[in-house]
Amino acid sequence: MDTNRIDAYIDENLPRFREELFEFLGIPSVSARSERKADVRRAAAWLADRMRAAGLDAAIEETAGHPVVLGEWRGAGPDAPTVLIYGHYDVQPAEPLELWTSPPFEPTIRDGRIYARGAVDDKGQLFLHVKAIEAHMRTTGRLPVNVVVVAEGEEEVGSENLVPFLEANAARLRADAIVVSDSSMVAPGVPTIGASLRGISYFQIDVRGPAQDLHSGSYGGAVMNPATALARITASFHDADGRIQIPGFYDDVRPPEEMREQIARVPFSEEAFREETGSPALFGEKGFGTLERLWVRPTCEVNGLLSGYTGEGSKTVLPSTAMAKVSCRLVPDQDPARIAELFIAHVRRVAPPGVVVDVRELHSGKPWRARLEGPLHEAGARALEHAFGRAPVLAGEGGSIPIVSDFERVLGAPVLLMGFGLPGENAHAPDEWMSLENFEKGTHAAAALLSELAAR
Amino acid sequence: MDTNRIDAYIDENLPRFREELFEFLGIPSVSARSERKADVRRAAAWLADRMRAAGLDAAIEETAGHPVVLGEWRGAGPDAPTVLIYGHYDVQPAEPLELWTSPPFEPTIRDGRIYARGAVDDKGQLFLHVKAIEAHMRTTGRLPVNVVVVAEGEEEVGSENLVPFLEANAARLRADAIVVSDSSMVAPGVPTIGASLRGISYFQIDVRGPAQDLHSGSYGGAVMNPATALARITASFHDADGRIQIPGFYDDVRPPEEMREQIARVPFSEEAFREETGSPALFGEKGFGTLERLWVRPTCEVNGLLSGYTGEGSKTVLPSTAMAKVSCRLVPDQDPARIAELFIAHVRRVAPPGVVVDVRELHSGKPWRARLEGPLHEAGARALEHAFGRAPVLAGEGGSIPIVSDFERVLGAPVLLMGFGLPGENAHAPDEWMSLENFEKGTHAAAALLSELAAR
Repeated sequence: MDTNRIDAYIDENLPRFREELFEFLGIPSVSARSERKADVRRAAAWLADRMRAAGLDAAIEETAGHPVVLGEWRGAGPDAPTVLIYGHYDVQPAEPLELWTSPPFEPTIRDGRIYARGAVDDKGQLFLHVKAIEAHMRTTGRLPVNVVVVAEGEEEVGSENLVPFLEANAARLRADAIVVSDSSMVAPGVPTIGASLRGISYFQIDVRGPAQDLHSGSYGGAVMNPATALARITASFHDADGRIQIPGFYDDVRPPEEMREQIARVPFSEEAFREETGSPALFGEKGFGTLERLWVRPTCEVNGLLSGYTGEGSKTVLPSTAMAKVSCRLVPDQDPARIAELFIAHVRRVAPPGVVVDVRELHSGKPWRARLEGPLHEAGARALEHAFGRAPVLAGEGGSIPIVSDFERVLGAPVLLMGFGLPGENAHAPDEWMSLENFEKGTHAAAALLSELAAR
Repeated sequence: MDTNRIDAYIDENLPRFREELFEFLGIPSVSARSERKADVRRAAAWLADRMRAAGLDAAIEETAGHPVVLGEWRGAGPDAPTVLIYGHYDVQPAEPLELWTSPPFEPTIRDGRIYARGAVDDKGQLFLHVKAIEAHMRTTGRLPVNVVVVAEGEEEVGSENLVPFLEANAARLRADAIVVSDSSMVAPGVPTIGASLRGISYFQIDVRGPAQDLHSGSYGGAVMNPATALARITASFHDADGRIQIPGFYDDVRPPEEMREQIARVPFSEEAFREETGSPALFGEKGFGTLERLWVRPTCEVNGLLSGYTGEGSKTVLPSTAMAKVSCRLVPDQDPARIAELFIAHVRRVAPPGVVVDVRELHSGKPWRARLEGPLHEAGARALEHAFGRAPVLAGEGGSIPIVSDFERVLGAPVLLMGFGLPGENAHAPDEWMSLENFEKGTHAAAALLSELAAR
């Protein structure tokens, strides 16, 4: 039977899959950094080569930013379903480098985990689909369904050029189902299908006061300190109970009741989660549990602060500028455009006198709620059960994959969110890792999914 | 007459004085930076050489930190008065380097100003005393009074080792008068005697939350964000009217009435001051004018903020730590030790849950009020009138020279604050400068002061 042969091929070739993944992880394709542009392009070229080796037609498609790598196989014919697999080959910046146990772009295995920037977000999860395709091709000479792989290089900087790309290529990319593996399972051994994603509105606030840094003695007390102004603005986002104070912010948020039942089924320990974060205590919006805070409640988080002298020792300077990066995670049915209006209006309203405050949106993405009925989700559930030996749970996802709702809107097909990360995987943080076991089982699940989609 | 010959010597030798000062300014003696330790020592050795060339006995006196350069001449005999001249040869860090018009350690003259880090704070003001001594020595073969020059290398990092040095050498350093030139005139052409100095309490606040940076989507909303916690703490220091909200902070502050009369005599334009700062508007504690805010009211200013991702573009990180440097400028009769207790207690009280907050004092210095009667101040007033052609005004000083009150306490002699900086001189900021005219007139005033002290 094909399934057995395909699974056997995966098991036999896993060491080579891993070596290839290590090559992929070794390329520092940091999309946020202009000085990494050549590395991003190198990662795209490498990925296109691997797609070709797996049996796809592959092309590097230019955009206004980093390119899209497009892989295609249409040999199942016009009557067979077409599945579009999405992932991204760009990664977050690796800083602060000194907090990595091993260098971020020198993949290393420790304790059954692959440590590297991008291991789980998203190179490992994208690459396992390429290997699943290879397993079918080398075993049976074909795929059970038509396949399109869309790998973008700008997910970590807001996917600005992907929607124009999708819109420009909507006919070519037409699909019956979309599969995305860029999320996590709720616990080791518990396969998970995503029920929702949070959206995002990411802002930068720049406060300007004096024309240059001033002596804090000679001038202190006589001008507004931009860092103080920024602190006042930043402190205004929440009350002491963790509730966001931006007027109108919660207007479009649904009551959490409908997810409470699902959340109750998810194996989850508040204390294990706290340990995973390393925080002295959990803290969040009053009246909600941790999974509710992560899955069905929006946030407003400071991502960065910078002002004045931050080096060793003391410098008595009154800073001329202060900067904050702040992002809101949004839940259905919040609209990023509306949130940006509210956020910007709020910052302008609370800005103290004596400084000039500039606030601008750096990027945004819509929240998403899965269509949990239909053949795509049934196929996904069977594929996951095949690989992991148990039925998947449904889970929200605190992170954002803004492109998911765009895919549904532009291509008109439902998305299956089938992620192979794990809690504590340090995506966006030092010592990012992906479980070796999940890379293996994820490859089996991805291969099984292609078969299940044909069988529906 | 000696005075005329001494003034003539200064005028004739000014070009060489300036060249020597440029050598001094070229040494990056940044006391806050451990990697500049050798440069600090090089500046000390250079200064000792120049003191010797001026006719002083000079020695480099070791301390637990950067050394003190001690110059002495006791030839006026035990019945003549002894004047101790204090200055510092260390400088503030020069960062941000990109904001300097010319490199900070390559002194340059533009528009009658010497631009360099340390030009006015304090190498230029210290060095003019050395040149005044040289002028006496080369002209008359002696000084009118006994002279001790104490030049420290740790003023910009809190003068930690100077008081122990003074205490250990109190007998040797015994003086009848102490002269400090490390402050500013209120306006060009208006010689100024300092009536008061603000003290300082400098703190660092470190907030720790998660064990490492977290993904702001996967974890945002479920733990306290250290940057948000820091913003809340920092925003708590003032109310919207600029009044400090630390309980007990103003308890020992005198009402400003006694300085209001002096302040009314000082030529001062609020608009010119605003332009000098480059701020869009002046702002400070409600109910006080700018000079009151600078001279007789305490402050609480943020000197630096750092948390999370501060580079180009956007990174969706929930930071593990956040840091603020905050310093309070104190007025008579506030006590830095008491302020430190109040500040630390306040920070602990307002710190939100879910993070660990560490607050520690980095350094402190007492405020000071001049004894404005007596022969020292009369001599100072005559010397300034001789050099500038008009009587000096009395002025407060917003900055701190913590060592001033220590000198009075340990050595029991009054301090004359006779500064030659000017508004807008950018001490502690990029493009620091000293007026060439003030370097020249300051040298004349310093020379005249030695004569006036003998004549009293």
